[in-house]
Parts: sequence; C-alpha cells; structure tokens
Amino acid sequence: MQLTRPILLADRSRAERNITRMLAKAKASRVVFRPHFKTHQAAEVGSWFRALGVTAITVSSLDMACYFSRHGWSDITMAMTVNPAQIKAIKELAAEINLGILCDSPEALELIARKISNPLRLWLKIDTGYRRSGIPAADRIALARMAEILLDSPWIDTAGILSHNGLAYRCSGPRAVQALYLSTIAALNQARDFLQDRLKKKIMISIGDTPTCNLIDNFTAVDEIRPGNFVFNDLMQLAIGSCTENDLALAVACPVIGKYPRRGEIVLHGGAVHLSKEFLSGSGNKPVFGRVTTLDEQGWGGLAGSGDITSLSQEHAVVAVDPAFMETARHGRALAVIPVHSCLAVAGVRYYLCPGNGEFAAMTEPYDPTGNA
Amino acid sequence: MQLTRPILLADRSRAERNITRMLAKAKASRVVFRPHFKTHQAAEVGSWFRALGVTAITVSSLDMACYFSRHGWSDITMAMTVNPAQIKAIKELAAEINLGILCDSPEALELIARKISNPLRLWLKIDTGYRRSGIPAADRIALARMAEILLDSPWIDTAGILSHNGLAYRCSGPRAVQALYLSTIAALNQARDFLQDRLKKKIMISIGDTPTCNLIDNFTAVDEIRPGNFVFNDLMQLAIGSCTENDLALAVACPVIGKYPRRGEIVLHGGAVHLSKEFLSGSGNKPVFGRVTTLDEQGWGGLAGSGDITSLSQEHAVVAVDPAFMETARHGRALAVIPVHSCLAVAGVRYYLCPGNGEFAAMTEPYDPTGNA
Repeated sequence: MQLTRPILLADRSRAERNITRMLAKAKASRVVFRPHFKTHQAAEVGSWFRALGVTAITVSSLDMACYFSRHGWSDITMAMTVNPAQIKAIKELAAEINLGILCDSPEALELIARKISNPLRLWLKIDTGYRRSGIPAADRIALARMAEILLDSPWIDTAGILSHNGLAYRCSGPRAVQALYLSTIAALNQARDFLQDRLKKKIMISIGDTPTCNLIDNFTAVDEIRPGNFVFNDLMQLAIGSCTENDLALAVACPVIGKYPRRGEIVLHGGAVHLSKEFLSGSGNKPVFGRVTTLDEQGWGGLAGSGDITSLSQEHAVVAVDPAFMETARHGRALAVIPVHSCLAVAGVRYYLCPGNGEFAAMTEPYDPTGNA
Repeated sequence: MQLTRPILLADRSRAERNITRMLAKAKASRVVFRPHFKTHQAAEVGSWFRALGVTAITVSSLDMACYFSRHGWSDITMAMTVNPAQIKAIKELAAEINLGILCDSPEALELIARKISNPLRLWLKIDTGYRRSGIPAADRIALARMAEILLDSPWIDTAGILSHNGLAYRCSGPRAVQALYLSTIAALNQARDFLQDRLKKKIMISIGDTPTCNLIDNFTAVDEIRPGNFVFNDLMQLAIGSCTENDLALAVACPVIGKYPRRGEIVLHGGAVHLSKEFLSGSGNKPVFGRVTTLDEQGWGGLAGSGDITSLSQEHAVVAVDPAFMETARHGRALAVIPVHSCLAVAGVRYYLCPGNGEFAAMTEPYDPTGNA
C-alpha cells in the first residue's frame, strides 16, 4: 500500500468480535454496558456498536458528547468531572439527550446545583486508590455533605457512584487484576451503602477500565461497565495480559521514508504527533514506542518478526528490524505500527481506513477535539 | 479566564522578540534564515515572521507545505526525506512554488530522479551522528553514487546538504552545544567539499536545531539555519539552557476540574492528547509533564511557585501544588501549562488565543495534519 501520510487502520471484524464478547459478558451479569467512545472517537466505529445493540455510551469531554449526540446517540455519560464553565452548554445538551455528568467534591457540586434548572443525571466520581480524580471512597464527611446538597436539589437525579481504577494499568496478569477488582468493589460497596442510606434510593455502581473488563467475567457486583480501549486493544493491553494478538483491532499505517541496512533500521513517516510518546519498556529497559509489522491489502501481519520503534521525534519513527524484514521494506510503501496506546494514536491521526476484502474503505467524519466540527 | 476546553496561548511580543533576535543573528552571519514552521503550524503566527521580513520557510510534511503555500509562502523546504508515494503531489506543488525536498540515499534518489519532469530543488540529508535519517557524512561511496545521479538529472537542482543534529537536545549548557556544533560543522564541511568537487557547483550547508541556533551566535561556517522551536521555546529548551523564562512564548490554558487540598493536587482538563507524553526528569527522577502557573487576562505568571504535572492520562493532568497556589485555584478557571515540548502541544491543541491588553484574541485556521483542510 502506498500512502502519502499516516492513517489509522481499523480491523472491523476484530473490533466487532471484541464488542460482541464484552456485550455478552455484560448481558450475562445483567449490567449496563456503556462503552467509552474516547478510544475510537468516530461516528462510524460507533455505528458498529449500535448495530450490535449498544445504546448507552461514555465520552471524555463535552465536545465529544456533542459530537456523538449529533450522530444519534441519546444516552451519554460525560466521564470527566464537570467544569463549571461548561454549565451553559451542558444545560443545552441535557435538554436534548439523556446526559450524565460527574462531580468530585462538595464544592463543585454546590456550584453545579446552584446553576442548573433542568433535569440532569449525576454520578459521584469515587477514587478507589488511583488518586487522579474522585472523592476518596472512605471520605464520609465529603459524601455526607454531597448527599445533603443532592437531597436539596430539585433537578439533580443521582444515578450512582462511578470509578475509574487506572491502577489496573499497572497490573500484570489476571490474578493481579482480579485482586484489585475485589478491593475496588469492597471500597465502592461501602460508599454505595452509605449514600443509599442517606439518599433513600438505589445507587448504582459504575466501573470502567479495560484491563478489568477484559479479564473479569462476572460483573454481578456492579451495575454498569464502561470499558473503552477493549474495542481496539494495543501493546499495553498485551503487556498487561488482558488481550491476545488476535484481539488487536487497530494499527497505524506509516510510509517508509528511509532504509538503513547497515544500522538495521527503517525510518517511518509517523511520529510523536501520530503515536504519542507513550512507551513500554523493552529489552535492556529501553523504551519501545510501538511495534512495526508488514501490511498488505488484506491487513497487517503478525507480531512475530516485527520491529520495535526505538525512537520517536515529531514526525519520524526509527524502527529496529531484522535483515529479512529490511529486505521486504520499500521506500514509499506503508508498514503497520501497532501502537502502545490505541486511544492516543486515534487522537493523533484521526482518519481511518478499514482493510479487508482486498480493499481499504475510508471512514469519514472523525470527532474534532477543538469543538469546531 | 473561564474555558470549556484547553487552548494554546501565544505571547506575540515574546515570539516577535525571539524571531527578531534570530533574524539579526542570521543577518550578521550572512546566512539564509529559513525557520521551521512545524513548531507553530499556523498561518497567523507565520504572518508575524513575514512582517519581520522572513520569506523562506521549512516544514515537516507535504501537507504542511501545501497549507503554507495556500497562505502565501512561495519558498519552502520540506524537511522530511521524500516519500516516493508523494511524487505526484510534489510535482504539482513544485510547479507553483519554489519547493525544496530532501533525499537520504542513492536508492531513494534514483526513484525520484526517474519520476520527476520539472525543476525541483534537492537537499541531501546528511547524518552527523544523530542516526535518525541521512547519509552518514563520511559515506563517500553513497555520496559519490548520488553525485552521479544528480549529474545525470536534467531537473534536479542540487541546493546543498542539510542536517538536523538532534543530539543537541541531549546537551546541557552552551559549552556542550558549542562543542557539538564544531564537530558537526567539521563533518559537514568534508561532505560539502567532496560533493562540490564532484558536482562542480556551490553546495550550501543548512543546519537546524533550536539549542544550537539559540546558543551559537556566529554562523559564518554554514549557509542556512532552520530553527523552529525558538519562536516559542519550552521547558526542554530551559533545561538545556538555551533560553530563559522570558523567552517562553507558548502556554496551554487548561481549566481546573478538580481540587484536592489534602493531596496537595489539582486536576486539569488537559492530557496526553493536548500535551503529549513528553517529559523531563524532576526531583527523585520522577517524570514532569509540564509546569503549571497562574493565568489572567494579561497572560501567564512566572515559574516561581509553579506546580509540576506529575501524571498525565488521555484528557487529565494531575498537578502537585503548594498550599498558596491551591488557595488561588478555582474550579472552571484556567491555569497555564508551560509544555515540555511546545511543538507537540501545538500539534495536539491546534487552536490559539493571544493574551495581552486585557483581552484574548482568537487565531484562526490552524494547519490540519490530516490533509483535509
């Protein structure tokens, strides 16, 4: 394949298999399946979920909520703690669709409660140890203050508590993830019971990360799951052990712009702006910014014999390859990069092709994070 | 300032001072000043250069060359080794403007020479030790083969040799950069003399990186300089010692979406998609993904008392701040992030405001890296 610039390749059949598998797990546990669309950020990939029966989604920003609302999604949780400067836009969107927002403190909740004047679904963001955002699960003083504000508000419908346990990304293997899941659930149960008692209503528990949702089968302890990355997976999920190579559904096609046989290196047009500078530790603790494999009209090749991206500048990647791989690479032909973190590669490259059946079908209309779409 | 999403802040007066200083150095050394526009990627910032007398520019991709050509730039070097799949588009652009392209091997040069049929300016990309792309400066076999192809081509005008010594980014302080500059020049001089002898014409030397161009004053040993980052600078240039805090001309305004006084941390809407995951080593060798300072209608505050971004996920930044800083931060109000690498922050955020005179003026029409602009 000849390409003039890097582009995303989405393997639709693998993505659909990943969606179908997660949907079946959610159904078996009778929990709401609300996949996070920040991973693919594209209406067309969204339509694959819709065709399989998904109706509720998660997004990571107000702009992304507006984008998917325009594309027919009417049940959206905005899984970022609310920015008070967005209240006006949130009210407008909540008048059109079933919108859920997040709040992480009594102070922020007071600001919101004072400003809204139409029904809004609210989740309390709970921190179970990741320490990014959320009320610490054991902070009963904060939870009690928030319950008071919620009881006073005529417009806020408290859906439940929501947690993203990013610590799962530091786990290796199913046992570590399982142990983390159990301690997370224990912490969330306490916060849920406390709030249920104060608010005298059902409080749902929503959890989110892909390592947990890929590796756990029984979700009966929670009410909703919100994985995002699972639709494509990536090298990070492979390293955690939460997917296999056959579950990788996204690559970035990058043209070869340099061959250096004596160095054993190829240079690709594809840099930090496309792949981000996310890395994994390779041999000798050296960073690996992606793995590079072959590409033809049917899709990308296996990881056996692939090359590591050993350095990455703004638009260039340097790839260490073996002599057999070097032999097959051609100036101007594209190779496939399996990214370390597929969500960030999607955000950087934004346009997709779908390989298969001997052709590549372009996808249109990606989400524009600048809000100008 | 209240913001619904992250946005770039460009300090025009500082940027103009940075441009004026570099232009004066280039004039004093009688070298061509061909700034790299991959740093700002915006026609409006380009117009600041034009108003100061700049007419020749560098870009990092064909799409960026087309964008700046549409905005009136007619002397452009595309400083990425050419992708043969782009030849058709390159021929079209070269018919309209004075376009320079790069080539890094006899094989690639042969492909190009065979396909073109109109005049094209070509630079031989030379590797002086960075080992990203380029013919090793001492590889006379490759240089001789390329000289033969060039002598045979009726269309290629060989401008000279061009190098980007990314090793300057691993230097600390002026002495290390000066020593590297001298060894780079020695290597380039040998390649230049060899080619000049073969081609019987003047071969120019073009060099590029900002640490070198910020720290060296006398460029009489070369013919052209192509710094890009210097217009904005960033934490990396500060760490190298190639700029001062007063030379920082770019920040990313990010709204506060969480305050955690007990943790001593603030959470911003502003993540890896906005800032990239580029980092510097902070105290205890922990990564720092940016520094966060105050922001008002006049611009951003000093780095004294600023907070470090200690972790970064897709759309969130966690910032360690002292109690005084915590006190002044407000939910929904924006703070200013000085990025580690300004070029990558520009690529991620894409839209600008210009603070000053009590107001922020929006800039329009950023470069669209997907080629759909």
